[in-house]
Order: sequence, then structure tokens, then C-alpha cells
Amino acid sequence: MKRNGVIGLPAVAAIAVIIGFTAIASEKTDENSTPIFLTEIPSGYRDFGLIAVSRLTRGDGSSQLRAELGNDIAIKAYREGKLPFPDGAIVAALHWNELSSPDNDKVLAKGFPGVGIQSFVPGSSVNMQFMVKDSKNYAVTGGWGFGDFTNGKPGNEKLMQTCFACHVPAKDHDFVFTRYAP
Amino acid sequence: MKRNGVIGLPAVAAIAVIIGFTAIASEKTDENSTPIFLTEIPSGYRDFGLIAVSRLTRGDGSSQLRAELGNDIAIKAYREGKLPFPDGAIVAALHWNELSSPDNDKVLAKGFPGVGIQSFVPGSSVNMQFMVKDSKNYAVTGGWGFGDFTNGKPGNEKLMQTCFACHVPAKDHDFVFTRYAP
Repeated sequence: MKRNGVIGLPAVAAIAVIIGFTAIASEKTDENSTPIFLTEIPSGYRDFGLIAVSRLTRGDGSSQLRAELGNDIAIKAYREGKLPFPDGAIVAALHWNELSSPDNDKVLAKGFPGVGIQSFVPGSSVNMQFMVKDSKNYAVTGGWGFGDFTNGKPGNEKLMQTCFACHVPAKDHDFVFTRYAP
Repeated sequence: MKRNGVIGLPAVAAIAVIIGFTAIASEKTDENSTPIFLTEIPSGYRDFGLIAVSRLTRGDGSSQLRAELGNDIAIKAYREGKLPFPDGAIVAALHWNELSSPDNDKVLAKGFPGVGIQSFVPGSSVNMQFMVKDSKNYAVTGGWGFGDFTNGKPGNEKLMQTCFACHVPAKDHDFVFTRYAP
């Protein structure tokens, strides 16, 4: 099964040309043996260290709470400011629907009266995303294998091919958007 | 220096009476040897595992992004649903001012046009809070030593005495509000 059809996706191809990835992409097109996107969730991700947290809102008013985690290799690289990330680095991004917590709100209203505090907590999982650094196997996507899992199942090839295109603007930070939280 | 004046604080005393902590509080008042609140940040907290993330907003429109972390003992207890938490468990809560990320917004607008995505990331640290389980030394505050650090410095005694009072409503979950994120 052909899995590495990166340059078959117009958006990725266009961006690849812009930033000079054409040569690498063309080279990899001839190899069909290895999936260039993750098909399995990296083991132990829930024990990874904290890189940062974040939040994403949409125009429809929905909101996601997010945690970005890293394995030891990734965390070490962050702390040392080492770029590019070394092979073996894994970054995990866990995304939850944000829920209001009326129970917390009641407690906080008593503890901090008049401050108008509202608390929001993680609800159901939206998806989990991963980046695994392997500069040889994933050369066509900046040395990173991308993965996107919903209910434990990997996204289809079309979805997976959008990952790298979206991460290209972070090229100066080795395609990783998230910064280490203080 | 007298540090365990818990029943000298009206709010705490009132709540202690309500939930039946009077006897313990009175007993501990006679011991002045050990601080009953944390005066040092637990070492290695930034390597703790992720319990959950959360967000807090105030009536003035400000927003905090938060991460709750646990040491191995705390994480194990969470996963096994073990209550009360065993001695040695540590829970850390890291609080940051939430910042808008126009850079991320631009990227997301290109990747997901028309969705109106806005991204928020951790800004400066607001404070860090800790709970350290030691059922003997901190019996007067539910077995937990509380700590609150701003710019690395512990809060004063008056602030620290508010911690337990605010956590009393979570008595059925061993005074810990945060639930493990899926």
C-alpha cells in the first residue's frame, strides 16, 4: 500500500516547494516500504513530562484545553535549547473539550468572594497528536513522523498529510510550535 | 516562631468545626515545632507526571492556564483510584497568565480557513501551589501540607492558612479538587 504520497497533496507540495523540500520529497516518493505517518500511539506518552499547556477556541464558541508533553529526549532538548530535536524525541499533544465546572465555581466563590472566578476543566478527549523525530525515516516531513488519533484510532492518510504542511511555519523551531512553559 | 495557629483563623476554625476537625486542630495547637505549611518548593516538581490541565477566569476578564502535576506516588494513586492518597504523594499546580498567540492564529487560519481558531499559551507564571501528603505532620490540615509560591517565595502565614479552608469541600476526594484527565 502506498503511504508516502506527500507530494500528491497540493497544499503540502506547494509549501514544500516554497521552503525547498522538493528534492527530499521527490526522493522519498520512490520508496513505498515505510509509512511516513504514525499508525500507533507512542507507548508511555501519558507519563511524559510537561512541556506546556494551551487553549484553542473556535468561532463557534467551543474551546479546547490542551497539554503538550515530551519524552525525556524532548524535554532535555527543550531545557538545553537544543535544535533540531535529536532522533528519538517525541512530543505529544492531548486535546480535551473544555468543560465548565460549577462545583469548582461554588467553592471559589466562597474562597474568593466578589472576584467572579470561573473554573474550566478537561472534558472528553478530542484527539491526541504526536510528533516522533526520526530524521532518516521521516526526512520528507522535516524529520518528524506525525500522528493524529481519535478514540485511539489513527487519522486517515489524507488527514495525516495535512500535519506537516501546517507545521512548516515553525521551521525555525524544528517544526514544533510549542514552547516550554516557565 | 508559632506557625500552626490554624484555629486562630476564624474561617478555618468554623469549617473545622463543621466537618469535625476540632479535636485534631486543638490537639495540634499544642505543638509548635514543625511548620504546618510548606516553606520550600518540592524538588523535581517540573518532572512530575500530568494529572490534568485547567483554566480559571476572573470577572475582570483575566484568564489563567493551569497544569496539575503529580509525583509517582500521586499518579499511581490517581490511576488506581486510591483514596486517601498515601503519604509521600505530592500534587503541584502551576498557574500561568494566559496569553493570546497571534503567531499561532495566523498559522491556524491558513490550515483551517474559516474556522475562526484562536490560540492561547502560557505567559508569565502567576504562582505555584503544592500539596504534600504526610498524614502525621499535617494532620491538622487533612494530612496535607499546603504551599503557595510566587516568584519562588512562599506565601505568608495568613495566606497559607486559607489553603485548607478552601479545600475542605473536596473532603470526599481527600481534599484534592483535580481529577485525572482522560
